[in-house]
Parts: sequence; structure tokens; C-alpha cells
Amino acid sequence: MKLAIYQGAGIPSDVSANLMLLEQTATTAAKQQANLLIFPELFLTGYNIGDAVKQLAEPCYGRSLQFAASIARECRLALLFGYAERDGETIYNAAALIDAEGNLAASYRKAHLFGAEEQRLFTPGQQRVLHTIAGVRVGVLICYDVEFPEAVRALALQGAELIAVPTALMFPYTQIPRVLIPTRALENQVFVAYANRIGVESSLKYCGFSTIAAPDGTVLAQAGAEETLLVAEIDRAAIAETRSVFSYLNDRRSELY
Amino acid sequence: MKLAIYQGAGIPSDVSANLMLLEQTATTAAKQQANLLIFPELFLTGYNIGDAVKQLAEPCYGRSLQFAASIARECRLALLFGYAERDGETIYNAAALIDAEGNLAASYRKAHLFGAEEQRLFTPGQQRVLHTIAGVRVGVLICYDVEFPEAVRALALQGAELIAVPTALMFPYTQIPRVLIPTRALENQVFVAYANRIGVESSLKYCGFSTIAAPDGTVLAQAGAEETLLVAEIDRAAIAETRSVFSYLNDRRSELY
Repeated sequence: MKLAIYQGAGIPSDVSANLMLLEQTATTAAKQQANLLIFPELFLTGYNIGDAVKQLAEPCYGRSLQFAASIARECRLALLFGYAERDGETIYNAAALIDAEGNLAASYRKAHLFGAEEQRLFTPGQQRVLHTIAGVRVGVLICYDVEFPEAVRALALQGAELIAVPTALMFPYTQIPRVLIPTRALENQVFVAYANRIGVESSLKYCGFSTIAAPDGTVLAQAGAEETLLVAEIDRAAIAETRSVFSYLNDRRSELY
Repeated sequence: MKLAIYQGAGIPSDVSANLMLLEQTATTAAKQQANLLIFPELFLTGYNIGDAVKQLAEPCYGRSLQFAASIARECRLALLFGYAERDGETIYNAAALIDAEGNLAASYRKAHLFGAEEQRLFTPGQQRVLHTIAGVRVGVLICYDVEFPEAVRALALQGAELIAVPTALMFPYTQIPRVLIPTRALENQVFVAYANRIGVESSLKYCGFSTIAAPDGTVLAQAGAEETLLVAEIDRAAIAETRSVFSYLNDRRSELY
């Protein structure tokens, strides 16, 4: 699988403009033969826009996701992007996974909400998402979720080979991409793709540093603070190779924890 | 608490020489007002000495630990060091924790044995060790144990403030001290002290890089490949401070894992 991450700022509170940006980026990624393109957390709406995120929330079968599905179908490229999901009166910080045929494979709802503002705006999710894209078992988490080793472990034990993580990580938390993301990859012997925002939204300055880490903990690709399309090859054989030396999943002593 | 780590090669298969080295180092650390001094894995015997480790194994109330206890008492300094523990016919890869009064506080037995050679020589342990030293709740793990996030989490949930880890980490696994140890500190908001060997024992070349990481994931002290005494102040207030912003332990969603 060829994996691409779009790192950018998007346009706060302008869903149509962000869908245009999604289309442009998907076209570029498709030209590079990407199979899966990941965007940051709440990409369609903006992350730090207060109550406006509720007004911009849409059902998972809404217009924006239908439009994104048509882009995926035209570009023959799977998409994963953050959006605000409305389900009746309930709002989730969600991520849509759309396959290369334009089907909504899953809508993942962030389970670990970070801080008072997220907890005020959103309801936490309850369900894991694991879906096969281009032959690779992809587990989805959002931002703060990946900081909990239990969340990644649960997906790895269920067979995830790539953990795909839209995020909105701000300064000063650069240690997350620098040490924690490579550790998540290493300790589960899986790929981890961490797609961050850049730029400023009111009081928050995002730190970029989007990262693709390999099952041995090495960093395959890492961005700086610029708008960029990161691309890396996800070779499932690397998982079997690292696990042939020793296997953390097999060596766990689950009766002790 | 003032914490010290001795990083060195020791003398393979010469317990008496290693006890002399332990005494010298304890004297030096005591002069620096250290409260706890940590040595590497299997410090008394050597790590990669094959079946000889079985011959050199001793009960936890044996002569070597009694001698170490007298050093702790004289230096008024707690000690944690790796040794091979014999319990009848059973041999453990263990670590003795001796308090500053010279009492054996605990003998921790490594729970996750790394690779075929350790599994051939040792029986895995079953029990957690958590003990208060100089006002700090200290959890003990050995080497491969700390690579399992579950093992550290279990200690943190039980109240550990410092995870103390004798280790024998060889090349090429430098990512453990570079990214995994800071991550364990960060994701549990605890201190982690990782005390490694240097030098060569037959086919293994140890990588040094002993590390003391703080509850926000920053590295307080880190060695290179030389023989050294690393010293750092362990300030429990730093734990409360990082957890006052957000608390991973509180934000876990244990019903989902």
C-alpha cells in the first residue's frame, strides 16, 4: 500500500473550501499512486472553532461525505478525514473512512476527548474501527486516543497492521510525534500514520510533525511545520519480519495486568 | 529523592569483584547524597554467561545480598541491582531492592523473559514489586518488562511514582532508551530510571544510554556508552504538576480495552 498524509491548516469554518482542498489533494495523491490519503482531525470544519463546530456537524450520510465519496471513487483512492458527526442531537469528533470505490467503510468516533472544550462539545465514542484498505488492516484512532497504549494495543491484538490517526496536536506537545508515535509502532510492531494540522486557530498553534512510523519503530517519513503531502510505502512483510525476531503480542503476559 | 544510576560493564562471572564495585559505587553515590542507587540487570553475575549464571545463583537471603545489605546500611543508601536468584531448583532473573537501613525490601523476578536463552535459563516471575524509598513509591521492572506498556501501567495505577529498571540492552535496540523510555514516563506521568550495561559479553554488545525520564517525557539525564554515575533529582511535585493539566490515568476508558 502506498500511504499519503496531507498536513495542512485547512480553512476554519469553511466546509466547502475544505472539500475543494480535499479534492485537489486527492488528485495529487492519486497521481502518485497513493491507495490511502489521510487528513487531520476535524479537517472539514476546523478544530478550534468553538460552538460553530456544532452548526457545521453533519450526519455520516450527509452531503459532505457524499461529495468526498465521489472524490474517492473518481480518484480510486481511499480517504480518511476528520469531521464533526451529528447523530440526532449528539455530536461526535469523528473520522470518515471511505474506500476507493466510494463506499463509507466506517465513521470512527473519538473515544478519548482531550480537555474541557472537547468534553463540552462532543460525546465520546464507544466503538473500535478496523477495516481492510488495499490489503492492509487499518485501525482508526483520533489524536488523544493514540496516546493511550491500551487503545493501540486493542487494535493490534484484533489484527490491525496500520494505525491511522487524524490529529490536531498543538505546541508544546511535540514529544507525541517525536517519541510516542514511534513507540506505539515499535511496541505493537505495526505501522502508525499520524496526520497533523499546521497553522494557528485562535489560541492554538499546531505543531505539524506528521509522522509515518514502521513496525520496528523507525520513522519512514516526518514533516516539519509546512504544508505538505507525506508519502510512504506500507509493506506488510515488515510486520512479519520484525515479529519473527521477537513478538511483543506473543510475549505479553496478559494474566499479570 | 536523589537518584543515581551506575552504568558499567561489571566483571562477568565474578560475583566478589562485582560486590566490590557495588561497594565503591555506593560510597561515591552516598557522597553525592543519593537516596537510591540502581545497577544493571544481573549485575552480580554478568548477563550473557550461559549456564554459569545457574551456578552463581543465590537465595535472596544468601551471602551476596547480606553483604550488599551491609553496604546499604553503612552508606545509608537504598540499592537496586540485578542478580540471579535461586529458590530450590528454580532460577530467576531477579533484582534486589535493599532499603537504606539494610533491609531486603523486595526481590523482584523478571516477568517477561527475552528470547530463547533467557527462557532456557530462568523461570518467569509472577509478582509486582512496589515499595516506598525516601518517600517515593518505586515500582521495579527488569529490561524487556518495561517494553510492555501494560506492565508499567499496572504499576502506575497502583501508585508507582518511579519505575526503576535494571537492564541489559544490546545493539541494535537503541530506540528503547531513545523513544520508548521517555514515552513510558510521559504516558503514565511518572519518572522512569533505566540502568543499562556497557561493554561486550561474548556475542552481545550493550548499548549504554542509561536514562532518567520525567513525568512530562523530558529526559533528565542520559548516558552515552561510557562507565558513569548518572544522578538526577526526583521531585514528586512534578507528577502532580503534569497531571493537573490532564491526567492519562483519569482519562483512560478502561471499559473499552
